[in-house]
Parts: sequence; structure tokens; C-alpha cells
Amino acid sequence: MREQYFDKMLYGGDYNPEQWPKDIWEEDMRMFNEAHINSATINVFSWARLQPSENEYDFSELDAVIERLAKEDMEIVLGTSTAAIPAWMCRKFPDVTRVDFEGRKHKFGHRHNHCPNSPSFKRFASELVHRLAQRYSGHPNLKIWHISNEYSGECYCEQCEKAFRVWVKDKYETIEVVNEAWNMSFWGHTLYEFDDIVVPNYLGDGIHDTAAAFAGLSIDYRRFNSDSLLNNFKMERDIIRLYDKETPTTTNLMGTYKGLDYFKWAKEMDIVSWDNYPSYNTPLSHTAMNHDLMRGLKGGESFMLMEQTPSQQNWQPYNALKRPGKMRVQSYQSIAHGADSIQFFQLRRSKGAVEKFHGAVIEHAGHSNTRVYREVMELGRELKRLGDDLIGAETKARVGILFDWDNYWALEYTSGPSVALRYVDQIQRYYDACYSRHVDIDMLHMDSKFSKYDIVLAPVLYMVKEGVSEKIDAFVSQGGTFLTTYMSGIVDQSDNVHLGGYPGPLRETLGIWVEEIDALAPGTTNILATEAALFSQGRYKCEMLCDLVHLESAEMVVAYNSDFYKGMPAVTKNRFGSGEAWYVGTVPEQTMLNELIAHILTEKEIETFDDVPEGVEIASRVKGEKTFYFIMNHRNDVQQFHSSFKGCTDVLTNQKVSDKIQLEPFDVKLLVKK
Amino acid sequence: MREQYFDKMLYGGDYNPEQWPKDIWEEDMRMFNEAHINSATINVFSWARLQPSENEYDFSELDAVIERLAKEDMEIVLGTSTAAIPAWMCRKFPDVTRVDFEGRKHKFGHRHNHCPNSPSFKRFASELVHRLAQRYSGHPNLKIWHISNEYSGECYCEQCEKAFRVWVKDKYETIEVVNEAWNMSFWGHTLYEFDDIVVPNYLGDGIHDTAAAFAGLSIDYRRFNSDSLLNNFKMERDIIRLYDKETPTTTNLMGTYKGLDYFKWAKEMDIVSWDNYPSYNTPLSHTAMNHDLMRGLKGGESFMLMEQTPSQQNWQPYNALKRPGKMRVQSYQSIAHGADSIQFFQLRRSKGAVEKFHGAVIEHAGHSNTRVYREVMELGRELKRLGDDLIGAETKARVGILFDWDNYWALEYTSGPSVALRYVDQIQRYYDACYSRHVDIDMLHMDSKFSKYDIVLAPVLYMVKEGVSEKIDAFVSQGGTFLTTYMSGIVDQSDNVHLGGYPGPLRETLGIWVEEIDALAPGTTNILATEAALFSQGRYKCEMLCDLVHLESAEMVVAYNSDFYKGMPAVTKNRFGSGEAWYVGTVPEQTMLNELIAHILTEKEIETFDDVPEGVEIASRVKGEKTFYFIMNHRNDVQQFHSSFKGCTDVLTNQKVSDKIQLEPFDVKLLVKK
Amino acid sequence: MREQYFDKMLYGGDYNPEQWPKDIWEEDMRMFNEAHINSATINVFSWARLQPSENEYDFSELDAVIERLAKEDMEIVLGTSTAAIPAWMCRKFPDVTRVDFEGRKHKFGHRHNHCPNSPSFKRFASELVHRLAQRYSGHPNLKIWHISNEYSGECYCEQCEKAFRVWVKDKYETIEVVNEAWNMSFWGHTLYEFDDIVVPNYLGDGIHDTAAAFAGLSIDYRRFNSDSLLNNFKMERDIIRLYDKETPTTTNLMGTYKGLDYFKWAKEMDIVSWDNYPSYNTPLSHTAMNHDLMRGLKGGESFMLMEQTPSQQNWQPYNALKRPGKMRVQSYQSIAHGADSIQFFQLRRSKGAVEKFHGAVIEHAGHSNTRVYREVMELGRELKRLGDDLIGAETKARVGILFDWDNYWALEYTSGPSVALRYVDQIQRYYDACYSRHVDIDMLHMDSKFSKYDIVLAPVLYMVKEGVSEKIDAFVSQGGTFLTTYMSGIVDQSDNVHLGGYPGPLRETLGIWVEEIDALAPGTTNILATEAALFSQGRYKCEMLCDLVHLESAEMVVAYNSDFYKGMPAVTKNRFGSGEAWYVGTVPEQTMLNELIAHILTEKEIETFDDVPEGVEIASRVKGEKTFYFIMNHRNDVQQFHSSFKGCTDVLTNQKVSDKIQLEPFDVKLLVKK
Repeated sequence: MREQYFDKMLYGGDYNPEQWPKDIWEEDMRMFNEAHINSATINVFSWARLQPSENEYDFSELDAVIERLAKEDMEIVLGTSTAAIPAWMCRKFPDVTRVDFEGRKHKFGHRHNHCPNSPSFKRFASELVHRLAQRYSGHPNLKIWHISNEYSGECYCEQCEKAFRVWVKDKYETIEVVNEAWNMSFWGHTLYEFDDIVVPNYLGDGIHDTAAAFAGLSIDYRRFNSDSLLNNFKMERDIIRLYDKETPTTTNLMGTYKGLDYFKWAKEMDIVSWDNYPSYNTPLSHTAMNHDLMRGLKGGESFMLMEQTPSQQNWQPYNALKRPGKMRVQSYQSIAHGADSIQFFQLRRSKGAVEKFHGAVIEHAGHSNTRVYREVMELGRELKRLGDDLIGAETKARVGILFDWDNYWALEYTSGPSVALRYVDQIQRYYDACYSRHVDIDMLHMDSKFSKYDIVLAPVLYMVKEGVSEKIDAFVSQGGTFLTTYMSGIVDQSDNVHLGGYPGPLRETLGIWVEEIDALAPGTTNILATEAALFSQGRYKCEMLCDLVHLESAEMVVAYNSDFYKGMPAVTKNRFGSGEAWYVGTVPEQTMLNELIAHILTEKEIETFDDVPEGVEIASRVKGEKTFYFIMNHRNDVQQFHSSFKGCTDVLTNQKVSDKIQLEPFDVKLLVKK
Repeated sequence: MREQYFDKMLYGGDYNPEQWPKDIWEEDMRMFNEAHINSATINVFSWARLQPSENEYDFSELDAVIERLAKEDMEIVLGTSTAAIPAWMCRKFPDVTRVDFEGRKHKFGHRHNHCPNSPSFKRFASELVHRLAQRYSGHPNLKIWHISNEYSGECYCEQCEKAFRVWVKDKYETIEVVNEAWNMSFWGHTLYEFDDIVVPNYLGDGIHDTAAAFAGLSIDYRRFNSDSLLNNFKMERDIIRLYDKETPTTTNLMGTYKGLDYFKWAKEMDIVSWDNYPSYNTPLSHTAMNHDLMRGLKGGESFMLMEQTPSQQNWQPYNALKRPGKMRVQSYQSIAHGADSIQFFQLRRSKGAVEKFHGAVIEHAGHSNTRVYREVMELGRELKRLGDDLIGAETKARVGILFDWDNYWALEYTSGPSVALRYVDQIQRYYDACYSRHVDIDMLHMDSKFSKYDIVLAPVLYMVKEGVSEKIDAFVSQGGTFLTTYMSGIVDQSDNVHLGGYPGPLRETLGIWVEEIDALAPGTTNILATEAALFSQGRYKCEMLCDLVHLESAEMVVAYNSDFYKGMPAVTKNRFGSGEAWYVGTVPEQTMLNELIAHILTEKEIETFDDVPEGVEIASRVKGEKTFYFIMNHRNDVQQFHSSFKGCTDVLTNQKVSDKIQLEPFDVKLLVKK
Repeated sequence: MREQYFDKMLYGGDYNPEQWPKDIWEEDMRMFNEAHINSATINVFSWARLQPSENEYDFSELDAVIERLAKEDMEIVLGTSTAAIPAWMCRKFPDVTRVDFEGRKHKFGHRHNHCPNSPSFKRFASELVHRLAQRYSGHPNLKIWHISNEYSGECYCEQCEKAFRVWVKDKYETIEVVNEAWNMSFWGHTLYEFDDIVVPNYLGDGIHDTAAAFAGLSIDYRRFNSDSLLNNFKMERDIIRLYDKETPTTTNLMGTYKGLDYFKWAKEMDIVSWDNYPSYNTPLSHTAMNHDLMRGLKGGESFMLMEQTPSQQNWQPYNALKRPGKMRVQSYQSIAHGADSIQFFQLRRSKGAVEKFHGAVIEHAGHSNTRVYREVMELGRELKRLGDDLIGAETKARVGILFDWDNYWALEYTSGPSVALRYVDQIQRYYDACYSRHVDIDMLHMDSKFSKYDIVLAPVLYMVKEGVSEKIDAFVSQGGTFLTTYMSGIVDQSDNVHLGGYPGPLRETLGIWVEEIDALAPGTTNILATEAALFSQGRYKCEMLCDLVHLESAEMVVAYNSDFYKGMPAVTKNRFGSGEAWYVGTVPEQTMLNELIAHILTEKEIETFDDVPEGVEIASRVKGEKTFYFIMNHRNDVQQFHSSFKGCTDVLTNQKVSDKIQLEPFDVKLLVKK
């Protein structure tokens, strides 16, 4: 584990005092104190104010803000401000803006609008960060450097095209290898020199976000674009390090955001931070998975919740208020899954522009006599009381689920067998099966140490890169339980098929051969039949895809019960070394999946909670000898259930619980077992 | 009221004889006479024929048309022809065409395709109008100048960008004020000089028609674009005035068309005219509201119905025939709401191009033995018999509803709380509540004289510009009844929030504070509870938005009955001076709204008609001592009801009516009370 | 009929050995032989390999492929490879790529991406084909020249704009005639010189694929674009002919593909070939109609099935496997309707790029132990046994249905009366009525010899070009039965209305006048009433369009039974000379249409099969004295019915059939009557 960056929970959020007259600052401080707010993220989009023209810098405003916050002894998360380029720069140096997927050159506007390969952008961003780092390094209240903000988007301009050619050359060395990798002999696409490479937007070989004529090319472009933005991050971080060797750096991520390979990013960041914006209808388990993914990015290190709204969103279609208590339980959900900070976007609501209907700790009313403020204050008091009890606590998961951006991109670019296939949805189904049993889960990547786990789930492991199957083999043969599904083992790193029969390099481990993949139209199902004792019923439905599986060394656990492949295996289990490798060849109804996973968990003697009402979540963190159990009611009504927690103390109330747990609406219990 | 421009109902329409051989003209004249057609709109899209090249003009064809019409003593509505630019102009002077929202430069094509700030367009349009005005001013049959046609659309080219910077400078004077107005410190958008301003299309800060990153900027661009086109109109009008001091000018508007601030336009027009194209499923009340809005543009002056189809449309998805009688009742609906002309698009059907399936008085069959022609002829006979009885009659409304293009734009640009919010829909709900009681309504703008009215309704008065709240205060304190709703009093003219609590400057008048605004997903409702006697039930549903209202001086009339804001006020009433100010904090079901408005009408002793069957409309106009009541059956079946009209004379049949009114399908009665 | 090009059924498909190492070629040959595959289509997208740079050609790889195939005595279908332009060409000669409907210039990417009027494309394609033809002409295994591939798409670049102006000048000679043809006086679009003509894409007068401001212009652009691509085809064909006078040429068509006037194309091709890709939910009758259309293109000559998938597609949304037997019955359906070849795309599956999930004879598994391979092999054996029995057999249809690309384009460009109107759907309804009686049908064009047929159906004969009505008159007066519908006889070749009353030049033949056309919204119906004995019921529903028909000399067969046109004719019959002309003025439910067509068939004593179960298709071909009846079960269950085939021999099993036919799932019987 990394060194401990925090000694207490950071509680605060995004703060933009430069938009307001100074008398409001005083009122802000008063309210921050009252609400036990101890940190502020500043200077996120201030480039335009810090540098009013090409050769002019002015830090006086930022100095004043920092000074005022320091006076209150607030922890400062200091932005570098490079996520929105100034107007003068777009006007004078048009190379700084992006060209989009349809080939349109953008002008000044929005944010996250810089071309990552723009020389002017790099020059000016670098100069700015030099000055910031020089000026503020060593400031006693400077807690974290926050580089740029929510990196995202793509650029397809000519300078990116040129940079991409260099990236491709670095990766493949010769154009012949590129042709092989992207299978360019198909449709007569042979390239003769690197200058033949065209960015895969709509004017080239792109089709849209989930379709590409040459997926190998488009996947590489995604890798390149992710790397290009990461280079921007690294450039700023390295400049900071010239002046400041110690203060950790971060940038706020966005859960399962498709555009960036966050596992690669996290290696360059000291702390993972992220922005959690569930909508009124986001499944609880999706938020939980996001948290676990963010924790997983740095192999289990706790993360910062950089942004959440205290109540309302503005950019969702229907921005429901968070009901009383909901912000609190969502905050504890973050902590339960690994957060060491709770920060809001934003502390004071903007009076204009696109986010003025976004909730804030201090609303447009401008005072503290609001429900939203009161809830923030009450949570602040509670967190203060908790102190550092949970800081740096770990999740001791015995189940890992693979999540891989290369697979994400590749799977969604496939043309066929079904447009219904979406990466995150498929991962989520398996996450949900574990989540329904309240089991702690680690989200893993290809380089994670599998041997730490009893069970590794790898749904839709479509792309199996070099070394991966060997790693899986080792894990299983040494006793691990491995599970994968339809659309696995199909292609290599370049989206070329592993020839010789699906699932390619996983075939021996799984002991099967998949001859064909049937695609079912929406509303169409096949029936699964099983006599296995692990299932409560004999028949289940399945949909979307049906693999036609032949047993090689595996045994059949579930069979199809209709169509011409009736009787063929749909779910199989293979003994391999001391372990087991499962294959799920179709998309069964969730109940069946839950039972299957429950069986595997039981076999590995992993603790599950089985009679917990819908909407109640249980998660745990361990610190030293103590295990903290978060019992969270995400519903707006009272929930009761019997549990094994009898005798535990609820740290929030200092009361001992009986074997019957009762939770008020949106209630949280934080139980400690030693 | 303005001087009386007409001495009789204009009855005619758009006429394009230049497309046909001259022997057809004679046949046209015969049929026009037979159908009592007394006017023709000509020269609407003839620029290409009037000016075949840069230095060549040819009016001989137009001369011939005018001469032929004059021979029949037809009234001429003379177009200026500038709504479609000639091919040679697009070829030689490419600055005349537009750049669209996505940044695409258009070539020659369609119509309404000129850039309003194009120097070439202005030069050529100006020259053409000089020649037209010089040539035809004083012609005895020239009744109205019709400038251009259906002004609409936007341009985002570089010359518009430059003109916009000038417009912004004229409005705000310094760039600091612009930054403040558009809240450019948000997302680091600070502008340093006027040249930093970028047109807010998709390549800048635009998103789409109902979303913008910086609404203040986008709203100003809408104002600018409306002004730019209005400048085109004014340029032509002023040229005409050099030669012709008397003939009124107009251009045809399009009801609630979003793009242009018609109240501002109407000030520059002598007569309002508009084009009425209800679809098969357009609600009756929407057409009625459109008419009232058009009448309201010039404070109640009667307007021209410039276009309607005698039967079929072509550009709607499903172009149903108007059933026998429907064109007649729709024509009377126009008159009932203030029209002094009934004009068709078009008199003779085009043989080719996009509108060839658009109905006409003379169909492709080419003779008068058609149902459509016969209905036109019969209506012509009837209108001729009516003579000038109704010309210049007024609507004596005691209820006004505010309609404001700035609010239209601003409300629909908001990001949050709900994408379901649409300006016209929300206004329509309140219009409908009045309409269901057959009350005459004036559509008002911010500068209207409120004191003329007993009741002013101002739904979704989102933007409250300077002086508006004072005006409302005065109206209420002097005894008026005012009503407003959710999403009112939120922002100033620049879309910056009135800080300190919603509904901002309306707060004292309404006696409430709105702490939060909840957004309900589609299909979700809250329940409203009330014991107020004015409602027939105790429970109603509401949807979309729920304001969390605190009473300050107001009383609660309706409360929420579910969710965490159960018991909080949803509808309130405040005594303020001698008047009352109502607030409706949610979107209740229409029944409740109808009852609420009925109650307010009753309190103000406004005459309503309460047991009229669905589909029957009653509206009135007053001329001198006479009040004309239009009783219109918009349905295709017989309707009966009891009324207070016993003893009135039906001017159309010269029969007295009993207390039981019976209407045949699509029937109209025009009753007179003295 | 043409000379007989084949002596046996070609059985094979697309083959791309250059993508694989040579040891795989040997394995391919072994499997081809085992599966009785006797032909291969090669060199379809190999331009990039044949010509690695501007001045370099390399045919060694192609030589090797041809040599290896020749050694197995395979028939070779030799592509010219011009359907995908090489990367270097796009880089060095940017005029080769297209500009799309929205005005976007495309770069290197995809295929079918060449501008048909690009000088560089023409120069390089011509040079390549010279070399190919010179090199391979006379090769004993060269069976067919396959020029380019699936010609399709449009270009709107400047060189196309210039070429279009020339095309227009060739057609119309003067700009005045153009103005008249496109009715350019509408909306002031008068053109002064040919340089005023702008390509009708989105930046000009285009709207989208089924809408245009000036349909006459847009239709001409479709004609021009079809001609431009056809010129590309002809250029290559003529070059081939310099070296090779005998080998037939083809290019693969795509059924009812909208973009190209295939009747015009077929005149230039020696053999029609096409690609048949029904989706899991494509109606059987649509595939049948496609086959008949392809056979009709050259007046009944048998065609090549150039592509079908042995099992799965990849580019459809849900790519279901073909169930066991389905590929076989679909292959026989092709033969039943006129195919003299069965060819697959593709012989070996590509390992990468967009079509890697497209089925192939040799799957990714790489061996012959797959279901798909076995089915291909079994069909190969069966076809080999059949030998040349069916080669060149003819369809002796007595019913013809008109299909015309000009009408296709014109009808779908109309603005009004209903957006629901689609050309192929309307034709399909009448095809289906015949198909439901298992009657052989010829798809005809305007120049077809009508007198060969007893019945000619011409649904939605919207555009009636010069000479067409005279031809119909002659056909009917000499005893033929003719039927047409709503939206017929409306416009001339330029989309200008035939004035004087619908259906224009067809009016006398049909003996009716259509005064108005009502459009019904979706879900809305009218009721049809009839007492005619030919119908089993007295009431049917109709939808979409209702013509208001006046009888002139026709008699009424069906009347409307509701709305204001109740009692007016909906279906009429007119005696004209010795024949009959029917008019169907609305879209009746399919049952009524089936009964109406059945009646007409009976009147003409055309053999029908009436009690055949749903999903069973019967079609016939005649060779010499023999008539072959294909009895095909397209369903996955057993079907039984009584027939008149008692005593016929099933050529596939050499068994005689009884009067009761029993078909296993996807079963086929091929019965011979002498």
C-alpha cells in the first residue's frame, strides 16, 4: 500500500470565490466552519484569469484565495487550471482547439477543448504549471495537486494525425507489421508508408463510437488518444515535481468512462480521485462497481471522491432532488468502497452559465438555512467525530473481476454478432451476481496479481493479449476458480482472431470448443435446462447470444433446451490442475447467474449475506484488527433483517446491535468487528 | 387603434401567373370572379425573374400581371421578392448565403437562404426595392407591401460574427460588462477583447436548439439574429417609404415561431399578417392562441391571415384533407380572433417542385368543378355578403397572458432541472384553462399596459428583466389578479440568477420562498391535496416539476401529499395591496388548472360559457355597439347546448336563435348582441 | 435468350488466398474438392497489392493464385479490383475520394469510396484493367470478368458538379428547357447558365434521401450518378473487350438497391449477378421478388448468385445463424427463380477487420469438421449430381409487375401526401398477392414487351414517361388485364404534374378521375365496402391514402364506407378495348388484395396453388419439354399438403410423389413434369 496521504477525511469541494465579491468570502468561511468543511478544491478553470494574454500572468487573485483559506486552516486541493483554454489562445493559436469525429474544426468554446498534441497548448500549459508550482510549492495548506480536470474527448486534427503516425511507428516499427496488425489486406487497405495512415474518424475508416471498418486501427487510435492526454497529465506532473517532490498529484476520473485507459493512467497518479454522479435511476450496484473500479485502479488504495452533488444535478434529463438522507448514504457508500474524502461539486452555486442549476452546499439563496446545507453540516459533524478511524482502511476482497479498456473498445467495435452487446453491461451482470450476496469485490486488470484471489471472473474477455492465457492457466492450475463467457478468447491485441477455434488460447483451460455463435433478436430467448443441484429451478431463459459449445475436457452443467442446438452445453465446468474453469456460453437470466455465482462463492467458503432486503447494501473495510461493516439502506423506507452482527457496535451511534438490524429510510450503520 | 387599412375583407391569396401561359390567366380571372376573390398576393419569389443578372432588370412580366389584376379591380398585395436570392448572385457573390449551426457554408438552394449581414445581399435587395417602389408606388390597386416572406433561420458566418461583436459592443459597451453578463468567469471563458467573441454555433459554445454552454451568449445571439433579419425588413420598408408614404407594409409571421422576437418586429410593421397551418392533430386551442398572439403583437389590432391552405398541406407527415366545412370554420376562427382577411396559399397549384401537393383554390385539374373550389366560392359569397361589418372590430379581453421571446429562448436553454420543459407548452396550459371557459384572451408582452386587465397570467416567467417586477407589483397592488408558476423569477436579462432565493424579484409580491425544485421523471407524479372549495375534488396529480415552497406572507391553497415535501405548499395565494398574486409551484393535471382559473375568472366577474360541448368554440369581437359572438363547431358531428344567446340574430342566416343552439358538423353561427 | 454461358452450376465463392500463408492454400484446395466447389471469385479488392505505387505493378501473387486454382481446374471469376482505391492514390491524388451528401470531403477509408468522375481514378483504373486484361485474357480457367464490386453510393464533389452540368446540357440542350423541366420558376430558382447548377446535396437543394426541394433536379442527379458509375463499369468492360472478345462480364448487384437504375445497367452487362443477404426477419417473398427482379433485368435470362453467406452475417443488427437446412433451401430458392450459380461470400473467413464475424465455408476453426462446412459439402454433392439439368432453364411467367427506378426515386422524393409511402413496400404488396398463390412473376420495366403477359400490374406508377400510357393502352385494348393504384399517372419524367386531373395520361384507360387524395395518419383506417362476389367478406380496412375517385367509364367494385367520401369508389374496373383496367385507390388490407389478384388470375386461367401452407413456396422453371417445380419449405417444422403433383418425380431423391406432399423442416422437393 502507498504511504498514507491523509490524516483525516477531507470534507469540502470545489470552490470558486473569484466569481464573487470579497464580503461573500467571509460568509463562505463562516458557513464552511459551521459545516465542518475542511478542504477546498480551487483554481480548476482559472487559466483565463491567471494569464490574461500571451505574455502576462497575474496570481494576485489566487494568492488571496489561498491566503484566505489558509487563515481558516483549510486543506487546499490546487488545480492547475489547464482544462479550459483561454479565449485569446484560441484566437491567436488556432492549433489549440480540436477537430471532431466528423472532421469539424472547433473554435473557442466549452472546456476540455484542447488538442492534446497541440504545440501551442503544450507550450502554454507547461509555462503556466511552471509558474504555479514555483509559486505555491511548499505552501503548508497545499494538500494535493489537481491536474487539469476530467480529461476526456478525442481530437482528429492534422497534428494528431502526425503524432499518431509516430505513435504507430514506435509501436510496430515497420509498415508491414502495421498492415499485419490491422489486417489491411482486407478491402485492399495495404499501407505503403506511415504517411498513408489516416485518423479513423468519419472521413476515414471510422463509422461511429461503436463501429469501425478496421477495429485494429480504431483501437490503436483510442490507445493513442488516451496516451496523448496522459502525456499532457505527465507533462504537468513532471513540472510540478521539479519544484515539489512530495505533494501528491491527481486528476478526477469518471468511473467507467470509455475514452481513457484508467489503469494505465493510475500508474502515473499518486492518488485516484473521481466524480460520482448517479442519476435518479442509476442502479446501486453500478455506483458500487464504479467505486470498486476506482479503488482497483491503484490495486486497492483508497481514493478521493472529488465530486458529488449535495442534492441536484443539472445535466441529466430529469434532475431529481436527493431525498433527505440520500446524500449521506451515498457518501457512506463511497467510503465503504474506499473513499478517504467526501467532496462536493460545488461549495457555492454559480449564478450563471450551464451549471447554474447544479446543486451546491451554498445554494442561490445564499444562506445556511436550507435542507441541503443542514444535511452537509450534519454529515460534516459525523465525519469529524469519526476522525481518522477509517483513513487508509483496506478492502479484503477474495473475488476479482477483470475490467479492461482494450476489451471495452474492441468488444464494442465488433461488427456482429449482435449490436446489443455492451461491455460495461456485461461486466455489471457478473458484478451484480456477487453484489447480490454482499461480497467485497476487487476490479482487476490484466497485470493484477490473480493469486491474491480465490475467484477471478472475466466476462466477455474478448481480447486475450499476450501472456494473459498463461496467467489464467497458472491461476487455475494452482487452485483458483476462473469464469469467463461468450465472446471470450476471440482476438489478439490487434483485434485479429486467434485461429483454430474459439475461445482461442483459453480453450484448453476451459476444455471446450465453441463452433458457432448464434445471435438472438430482442425479445427472443432460448431455454436453458439443468439438473445441477446448485440451481433452484430446472429451467431458465437466456438471450442475446448462444454459443454452440463442444465439450473437450469440460463437463456440461447447463444445456440448451430448444432450437437445433438443444442438448448442447450452455454452461460448462472444467477441472484444470487444482482449480476450476467455468464457461457461460449465453446470457442467462440474472437469477440463474446469481445462483451460479453463489455456488462458486460457497465452494470457496467466502462469506455472503443472503437474506438482506433489496436496496440494503453491505460492504466492509479493514484497518488493523478492526473490520468495519457498512450497512446501508438505499431505500426511502424502513428495512429489517436478521444478521450475524449481533453484539457489534455501531460506531455512528455507539450502540450495540441485536441480531435484528433495523434501518430507517436511507439509514447507515457502521459496525465494527474486532 | 391604428387607422383602418381595409374597407372590406380581403379574400384571395398567393398568385403566380408568371409560371403559366397567358390563356390560363383569363381562366384564372373568370374563376376568381366566380369565387368572389378580391385580392392577390404576387411577386413573392420573383427576384430571379425581375433581375436576371447583376446589371439587368426586367419588370415587364410583373407589369403585365399587375395590369391584368387591376383590370379585374383586384386588391394587390405586392411582394418585394427578396426571400429567395437568385442563382447568379450565389454564384458571383458567395457572401450572400448562410453558414449553418454546424458550420456548413450553404450554396444556392431552397429559400430564406440569405445571410442577413451580407453586404452583397443588402446592396442588391436595396437596389431591387428602390426600383419596385419607384415603379409601383401610387398604383391604385396596390393595397399592401409584403416585404420578403416568412423571415426565419439563423446564420453563423464570419460576417455575422463580426456584426455580432458590434451588436454586443453597442449593448454592453465594455468587455468587462460582457464577461459579467454572460458569466464568463465560469469555465474560464473570460473575454479580453470583442474579437474574442465567437458565434455560439456547434463549433463554439452552442450545443443545440435547446441547450447552450453559455445561455447569456446564446440568448444574445438569438436577439442579434432576430434584429439582423429585422434590419433587413426595415431597410426595405424605409426604401419603400421614400416613394410611398401611405401603403401599409407587412411581412407574414408564423405564430409561435421561436426564431424571431415578433413583439419587436410588430413595432416596425404597419399590419401584422401570418400563416396558419394547423395539422390534422393540432389542438384547436393552439390555433386560437396563435391568432390571439398575432393580434396581440400590435396591441389588439386586427391582422391579416396571409396564408392558409384551402384543403391539404404537403409538408406535414400525414396531410389529411380538410373535411367539408372545415376550411370555412377555420376561416371564421381566424376572423373571430381578429383577422380582417382570409387568404390562401395558393390560388393555383404549382405543377412541380416541393409544394406541388399543397392544396390550392384551383387544383391540378384546372377547373372549378371541385369540392375545394366550391367551398372557397361559397365562403367568398358569404364574406361578400358580410361586407365590412366586422372590419376593424376589437377583442375586449379582460384576461392577459404574457408571452415573451426572451423567456422562450432562456427557458429552453436551461440545463436542468428537466428536459421536458418547453415554453409554448407551458403557456398553452394556462391559455387552455381560459379557453375551456370561452373567455377572450389577449397575449401580452412586457411593455403591455397591464392595468387594462383584471387578470394577468404569467406562466414560467423565468426571466424577469429590469422593471418587470415593479410593473407586476403595481398591477397587483392596484387590485389586479396575477398568477405565475414554477420556473419564474429565476434570472435577469442575461440569464444570471436573481440571488437570495427564488422567485427573486417576485418573491415579495407572491409572498413565498422556493427553496428547491424537484424534477420528476416521465410517468412519475406527486399528489396534490386541497380542501379549497374552488376545487371539485380533494386530490389531483402533478408532474414534471415540484417547487418546495415556503410561505412568507402567502396562504397555502394546495399542498403536496406525498414524498418528503408532503404538506408543503404547491399552490399559494398572496394578498398584495388590493390585489392577489397566485403561485402554482408544480404542473398539475389540466382539470385542476381549469378549475383554478375558472375560480379566478369568477372572482373577477368575467363572463364564461360553461356547458359548451368539447370542440365548440366561442369568441367575440366588438364593433361600435355591436358584439359579435362566433359559435364554432370544430367537430365533424352535430353539437347542441343551452346558452344565453336566446334572441340573438345569426348574421350568416338572418335567423334568431333560441336558447338551445344546434350546430351542424363544422358549423358556424355569428350572433350579434347590441 | 443469350448464349449459354455455363455448362454446369458454378459452385464456389469469394476467395482471398493472398491473406494467408501458402500451406493454407493446399488445405483450401483439399476442402474445396471435398465440398465439390468448382469456382472461385478472386482479386476483388487487390488493387493495393497489384499496384503498390503510381508506377509499379506486381502480378506475381495473382499469377500464383490463378495457377493454383487452374491446377484444380476451378472456374475463375476474375475481379478487376477497382472497388477499393489504394492508400497511396488517396494521398497523392485527393480527387479520387468522394464528397458526401453533407459536403464532407472523405479521405482514404472504407471501399466504394472513389469519385466516379475523378480523372485520376479513371486514369489509374483504366491502366490497371488494361494490364489485367492483357495478362489474363484467354486463360483457360477464366470464366467471367467481375468488374469492380457492388457499385453504390453518391459523390457531390466539384468534379461531379461539373460533369453533372455537362450531363444536363446533353439531356436538355438549353437552360430554358432545364428551368421548365425542374420547374425552377418556383421559389425563384431560375437558372441563367449551366454554371448556375448546384449539386443537390444538403448544401444545395437536397434535404435527405427521401426529400428534395426540387425533385426534378434531384431525380436527374440520381440518374446522373447512376450513369457516372455505369460509365466506370463500361470503361472497364470496353478495355477488357480490346483483349478478350468472349469472356462474359458482370458486376454484382444488390436487389432493390435504390441508388442505381439496374435496368439500364443490365443492358451493359453480359450476365446479371447479385448478392443475396436476407436477414433473420426478411419476408420470404421479398427475397423471391429480389430474385425475380434480378432475372427480369435482362428479360428473363438466368443470373448468378454471386454472394450469399453459408450461415451468419455480421453487419445486420442481430446476426442469427442459418438453421440446419436453411442455407440449402435458400440456395434452391435462388435456383428456382433463375440462378445458374450458387456462390458464397466467402470461402475462408478473414481473421480481422469489419467482416471477421461474417460466415464462411471455412470458418476460423480452419477445418472441415463444422456444421457449416458439412452443409456446403452436402449441397455441393447434390448440385453436382443435378449436373446441367437446370442450366439455362426459363421462367414462363404470364404475370408481370412493373419496377422502375425513376418511379422509385420520384415517389420517395414527393413532399406529401404521406411520409409513410415507400416504393418497394408498395410493389411488394402486389407481388405478395401473386406470391401467395404461387404464381410465377416477371419483374418488368417500361421497355418490356407487355404483350407477352396476360396481366400487367403497375402499382404506384407515379411517373408516367412519354410513350408509357400509349403502351399500356395498346396492351389493354388487345385484351390484357392491367392494374394500377393510388399515386399513379401523376407526373412526367421531370416530376411535373400531368395537368387536367389525375391519373393524367392513364385516365382514359382506367375510366376514372381522382379529384383528391386523402392521407390517413398511422393507426387510422377507412372501411371498404363491397358486394362483389370475388371477395369473401363485405368489409375490409384500408389505410395510408384514400383517393377520391369519380367514375368516368369505369365501374365501381369497392366503395368507401366512412368519412365524407363514403360511397365513392375505392376500387374500379374499366373495360377498354378487349381488356380490363383496374384501379385500386387506397391501401387495402392484404387479404383483400390477395383476393382481388386471385380473381384476376382466375379470370386469365393462370395456374395457382391455393392450399399450400404458410412458409412453403412453389416456383417453376422450364427447360425444353421439362417443367421443374421447386417445392420449398422455408420453415423449421414439418409441412403437409395435397397437391396436383401426384406421380411427378423428385429429381433430388428419384422418388415419385403421391398427392400428399410432406416436407421436412427446410426441405426441398424438385419435381419434374414432362
